[in-house]
Amino acid sequence: MERIYLDNNATTIVDPKVKEAMEPFWCQMYGNPNSLHSFGMELRGELGVALDRLYAGIGADDADDIVINAGASEGNNTVLLGIYDALIRNGQKDHIITTSVEHPSVTATCRHLEKLGVKVTYLPVNEQGVVSPGALREAMTEKTALVSVMWASNETGMIFPIKEMAHIAHEYGALFHTDGVQAIGKLPVNVREAGVDYMSFSGHKFHAPKGIGGLYIKAGAPKVTLIHGGEQMGGLRAGTLNVPGIIGMGLAMELATDALTYELTEIRRMKDKLEDALLKMPDVLVVGDREGRVPNTILISIRGVEGESMIWDLNKQGIAASTGSACASEDLEANPILLAIGADKELAHTAVRLSLSRFSTEAEIDRVIEIFPKAVERLRAISSSYAKQG
Amino acid sequence: MERIYLDNNATTIVDPKVKEAMEPFWCQMYGNPNSLHSFGMELRGELGVALDRLYAGIGADDADDIVINAGASEGNNTVLLGIYDALIRNGQKDHIITTSVEHPSVTATCRHLEKLGVKVTYLPVNEQGVVSPGALREAMTEKTALVSVMWASNETGMIFPIKEMAHIAHEYGALFHTDGVQAIGKLPVNVREAGVDYMSFSGHKFHAPKGIGGLYIKAGAPKVTLIHGGEQMGGLRAGTLNVPGIIGMGLAMELATDALTYELTEIRRMKDKLEDALLKMPDVLVVGDREGRVPNTILISIRGVEGESMIWDLNKQGIAASTGSACASEDLEANPILLAIGADKELAHTAVRLSLSRFSTEAEIDRVIEIFPKAVERLRAISSSYAKQG
Repeated sequence: MERIYLDNNATTIVDPKVKEAMEPFWCQMYGNPNSLHSFGMELRGELGVALDRLYAGIGADDADDIVINAGASEGNNTVLLGIYDALIRNGQKDHIITTSVEHPSVTATCRHLEKLGVKVTYLPVNEQGVVSPGALREAMTEKTALVSVMWASNETGMIFPIKEMAHIAHEYGALFHTDGVQAIGKLPVNVREAGVDYMSFSGHKFHAPKGIGGLYIKAGAPKVTLIHGGEQMGGLRAGTLNVPGIIGMGLAMELATDALTYELTEIRRMKDKLEDALLKMPDVLVVGDREGRVPNTILISIRGVEGESMIWDLNKQGIAASTGSACASEDLEANPILLAIGADKELAHTAVRLSLSRFSTEAEIDRVIEIFPKAVERLRAISSSYAKQG
Repeated sequence: MERIYLDNNATTIVDPKVKEAMEPFWCQMYGNPNSLHSFGMELRGELGVALDRLYAGIGADDADDIVINAGASEGNNTVLLGIYDALIRNGQKDHIITTSVEHPSVTATCRHLEKLGVKVTYLPVNEQGVVSPGALREAMTEKTALVSVMWASNETGMIFPIKEMAHIAHEYGALFHTDGVQAIGKLPVNVREAGVDYMSFSGHKFHAPKGIGGLYIKAGAPKVTLIHGGEQMGGLRAGTLNVPGIIGMGLAMELATDALTYELTEIRRMKDKLEDALLKMPDVLVVGDREGRVPNTILISIRGVEGESMIWDLNKQGIAASTGSACASEDLEANPILLAIGADKELAHTAVRLSLSRFSTEAEIDRVIEIFPKAVERLRAISSSYAKQG
């Protein structure tokens, strides 16, 4: 059976071009780039190209840092714990603001910081799943060290008003961090234009391998370090450089930038086609304005159908979807974003997320349009809760 | 020109078998293992095999944890900062003991902890480059939380008396951590037999890729976390699993175990042959007892010859060696281990490290035996300091 992968917000296929670009760096050019011999030095040119591609891809200035790390979970921890070290531990500041819908690597780290006495405000989201700049302004204090708000939601695909919120944070003398994992390759990302101080990203969300990512640090913002040690990355992150990963992620960034127009037109069109088809079913709800979303994501709630049952049914037919973030998906809990936007508990158990990529095809979407409603019908027929309502 | 790689303590070639084992996981089996659909679930069997290989390779018990991470720099930070969080921050303990010759990811983290008020003892090494258990015993207090001592030195290859030191730490109610990066594949490693509570390791030191490693945590020892977030790794380390890396490192561990006899006989023989040949030169010194060293490492001091000049000269002839740890090698400083063992400053600038692997060949060693002494002669001929002595 031909499989259809619609879980690209969880992770993505490595672009075959990226795989090919990494090829020489396993068994031929395998040196440590910090070495003074040819095995080390021969890597510097290509690593430089890869870093240039990353800087260009996110609109960073030469004076800024992009610290290569293992991914956005590390990046998010680095910023939150680093700002605690730099500004809060010494009593200068005492407060962090984030949202109720961030990735677990932000919220769990905030919970950890709360145990250390940090005040944390979790901004609520509206029925669109978005935080309002007004709510941020109300929460700001003179002791706010950091505001951390995702650029786009992994669950709903909704885009957050990052530029406006960074501006508010700065007005009050706070720093602004954004988890940009779901933004890269899905919308134009320019950190300088947006005015953010820090941005985390993960290669595996835009067709680079797993285990490689980066943290953007604006020139002048406090340097933050999670892994102390060697002089790699200007002393900001110890550990032998993951050479194939960096080479691969650099190319993946360039490919993602090149494909952005395709993403914003063709992928959006396919996604809209799928969304339109699904919305023809009765008693369903897609979260968030179509215009306010990244082009690849649909979070749909199907009254009467447990999200997990739907995932299993689709999976049997070769379609990979999710109930939401893979980072917590081993627990069969209510979708936290649906709870956050105020959905009732029953509806919150019925979320299915479909996320496309530039590797998704029209034929695949057509097949999903055929299969998905039948699965819903079948599951609703045996659903006690839906029968009662119907 | 055929190149000869003798810098295996810095990083190693990926074993072609490891590269092959990772092959399906870039563009075919690319799911997130936390996902509930087939792209996620199909990974679980092979990930289980990889983990089993890691457990077997280091002699871990099923009840213990091996937390997959990005490498030993992360692992070392996780233990030191985690023990601070668990036992020192609350005032229960106040003291950490380590050595003066650890990897920068240990010493830099200890310096960071000192700024937070932690007392740190840096045990000196003797003229063999080894810490004595007696010195550890003298440094122990009732408030010592953790002892962190490397299993084998990256610089000299000297093996430290880990089992005896773990025993002493435990006598005083402290935990014991070892940085095991240079031990795996070079000597029999059994964490249970050695009695350590934590051990860090990096895949790229034993022919797995860069950017993947693990932290062993003995059952019952305090859980330590550096990267908070998702439920991956039992909640101990957030971040999407690096699937190809884990698969590759699992196989690399098995191959390293399988090759251990070869390493302890053939590689040792080739290394000894090289060492014997180099020791025929006048005014040279190899650091550390031959019997007390891992089988692949020679740290040789060559009076009158700057280590960097030697590296450059060898490099021009296709031989990759190092002056010591690649993690600090961009600075042309004196080799810190030679200073630590009490060498005079001039001698400390003359260190060259040669480190073999199972991919080293007899023909390569013969060629180095031919080239190395000639390079020394050439450089000594233009050395003002050596001329003065001669």
